[in-house]
Amino acid sequence: MVIWQTDSWRLVLKEQLLPDGRRQQKPIVVHPGVVVLVPLLDDQVIMLRQYRLALDQMIWELPAGTRGWDEDWLACAQRELREETGYRAERFVSLGEIWSAPGLSDELMALYLALDLTPDPLNPDEDEQFERELRPLAELVEMAVDGRLQDAKTIVAILRAARYLQANG
Amino acid sequence: MVIWQTDSWRLVLKEQLLPDGRRQQKPIVVHPGVVVLVPLLDDQVIMLRQYRLALDQMIWELPAGTRGWDEDWLACAQRELREETGYRAERFVSLGEIWSAPGLSDELMALYLALDLTPDPLNPDEDEQFERELRPLAELVEMAVDGRLQDAKTIVAILRAARYLQANG
Repeated sequence: MVIWQTDSWRLVLKEQLLPDGRRQQKPIVVHPGVVVLVPLLDDQVIMLRQYRLALDQMIWELPAGTRGWDEDWLACAQRELREETGYRAERFVSLGEIWSAPGLSDELMALYLALDLTPDPLNPDEDEQFERELRPLAELVEMAVDGRLQDAKTIVAILRAARYLQANG
Repeated sequence: MVIWQTDSWRLVLKEQLLPDGRRQQKPIVVHPGVVVLVPLLDDQVIMLRQYRLALDQMIWELPAGTRGWDEDWLACAQRELREETGYRAERFVSLGEIWSAPGLSDELMALYLALDLTPDPLNPDEDEQFERELRPLAELVEMAVDGRLQDAKTIVAILRAARYLQANG
């Protein structure tokens, strides 16, 4: 049963069978997933300072965006990259997939390193409010560990990108 | 306006002022926050294999739990630790606070290292289904980086715990 539906996700009542045999209804966010991008220009990453209504503040985040329900993951990655950074990537390297909040949502986050960037902008969504800023990857790794980065997907993607580049760099 | 209310969180319509001056309503999950625990027994961490209805599978997670709206954060940490591991901690060390999904929720996750453990169990929530397993911290760090861990809060907390113990261990 769908309780609420937005452009990008649905709140659905799902039945759970408990260990003692009883059943209960639990509300679950059903989500098409997001891409999270680590766009690399030399040794710098294109970061966003983004306004988040839920927090009513600007926070540091990697470029990221919600997938259309039937959208190909890499097509989504290229589209979001162009919208949020103004670049396209010749190459995406997967940094794995993570769940944001499996206690209440099935949202999967696919992490990608975006490499060999060339300018090719696309207009961003009109409700997004952010500024771009280049930051050295090494500094972002420090920020991920010491607590200056607080967005979970951003922390994981930065640390995995650093590890990948160290091994394959 | 509250759209839906559960025991632990609410779905609320919040008004957003767009850069062009228009206003739109956006649904936001308003959440009391969770504690995420890294319970250390010697150099091993108490991990959970937990069933998640949203994903319909068992996943690796650190012990964690939702705070009561008015509950003290450290009281919540001790309660969840006792419920999910059967131990109490003499000492909690903060590993920072992260947001799980700031695009749709204000959920804050407070990460703690739980140290100097002694047995003191408390009955867990009846709808939780998990098994406990001890794993070496060094192995969990590998799992966080190579993709075997997929829960965002677990990855961040494990990496921060390892860093803290390296510096203060």
